[in-house]
Amino acid sequence: MKKPIGIIDSGVGGLTVAKEVMRQLPNETIYYVGDTARCPYGPRSSEEVARFTWDMTEYLIQYDIKMLIIACNTATAVVLNEIKETLSIPVLGVILPGARAALKHSHSGKIGVLGTVGTIRSNAYSKALKSINQDVKVSALACPKFVPLVESGEYEGDFARRIVSKTLQQMKADRLDTLILGCTHYPLLEPIIQEVIGAEVKVISSGEETAREASTILDYNESLAVGDHTPHHRFFTTGSSKIFAQLASKWLQQDHLIVETIDL
Amino acid sequence: MKKPIGIIDSGVGGLTVAKEVMRQLPNETIYYVGDTARCPYGPRSSEEVARFTWDMTEYLIQYDIKMLIIACNTATAVVLNEIKETLSIPVLGVILPGARAALKHSHSGKIGVLGTVGTIRSNAYSKALKSINQDVKVSALACPKFVPLVESGEYEGDFARRIVSKTLQQMKADRLDTLILGCTHYPLLEPIIQEVIGAEVKVISSGEETAREASTILDYNESLAVGDHTPHHRFFTTGSSKIFAQLASKWLQQDHLIVETIDL
Repeated sequence: MKKPIGIIDSGVGGLTVAKEVMRQLPNETIYYVGDTARCPYGPRSSEEVARFTWDMTEYLIQYDIKMLIIACNTATAVVLNEIKETLSIPVLGVILPGARAALKHSHSGKIGVLGTVGTIRSNAYSKALKSINQDVKVSALACPKFVPLVESGEYEGDFARRIVSKTLQQMKADRLDTLILGCTHYPLLEPIIQEVIGAEVKVISSGEETAREASTILDYNESLAVGDHTPHHRFFTTGSSKIFAQLASKWLQQDHLIVETIDL
Repeated sequence: MKKPIGIIDSGVGGLTVAKEVMRQLPNETIYYVGDTARCPYGPRSSEEVARFTWDMTEYLIQYDIKMLIIACNTATAVVLNEIKETLSIPVLGVILPGARAALKHSHSGKIGVLGTVGTIRSNAYSKALKSINQDVKVSALACPKFVPLVESGEYEGDFARRIVSKTLQQMKADRLDTLILGCTHYPLLEPIIQEVIGAEVKVISSGEETAREASTILDYNESLAVGDHTPHHRFFTTGSSKIFAQLASKWLQQDHLIVETIDL
């Protein structure tokens, strides 16, 4: 089915999900909305996060999308269930795919979660993990300094390494075997996070896992785009289309992206 | 939802899938049918494989299962679509979960598949992989000596190592980065296969991947068993319940399994 997959995020972080969907499902067309002007969502109230997420959802619905991916952990924690119950198309968040992948990889049952203040405060990962296996031990850590590092493009180098190292210090005593990056911005910091936490810990990126589940659900609903299509992705931002295009081109390693500024 | 998940296989190989479902979804109850008396399915005609698979399916339907997993690649290749179209519950095979996991892991796009003569002849993996990404290169290899090694319990030691080494010889020149174990018996041989093919190749077990997708689909349908249930698994075999119980207890590391011999 040639209809687009809609992906929404508070900013550019959800591009890590978009990139994985493009890699794992190269026939699919993506329509992406990044609410860059109102990013970050992490410190906002639940009411605001819900309202902003609905704004993006309603914007994409007009394009007859066949699936909606809420590529923002904060928004998933707050409003996934409500949107899922309202729309007739499949709606995926990023929390359960990350949780399921962690349960698949973890043998010791000691699982760490990194996220924004909003995501960690919501306890969404712990609830998701324990709803499937009540015996796991979850260590959750809010990392409020990580999103600004990524949005500002400073996710490589010594400054980022110092911040990550200091933030994860207390987690190293927990002897985790699996660590979930519970924010779609964090995969940009993954090389540093892996280095700091140690090679023996399996680091799970919710982006990769959500792309995989999108494929499972589209296949289950018989609505995968099969055969040789050339997808025409579109990107919408509430902020500067120029800055968005620069970041997106670098991350997705694609030139000539179509980026449009919209009002929500 | 407390209804059981049905798992069917030509013999004991599907226990690798059952084991993963138990590990990743410890609240779920499993009803397993192994058609040991008519195993292996690999060399049989499509008509026979279809008929035998329907026999097992109809047997489990009487127990009001909420999902059916066809944990046999040969049966999946032949009859998954027909059963899926006929039943009202979700029906999963093991081929697409393995294919999707391979597409997620592979960066070079050079993917190998090991399977029975029937599975390889059906070209099912190649079709599944290319339906999602037409650019991948697939090397498929039939390994008719592997299932007898596993069913006879000789899957460890020098004899197994010699057979695996000789079988995979020709594949080593293909410079794969991902290898799919396209038969649910093969995970028992995984340590030897990994050793022979080399540590740089990611070996994908369809069992783990299918358990993960079962979790995704049950969650999507809101029929996961949540909370603290003690599952009561049941195992049915068309062969000797004693031999089945011995093998199953060893693989699943569980004592006191309930194994019943049935006629199909």
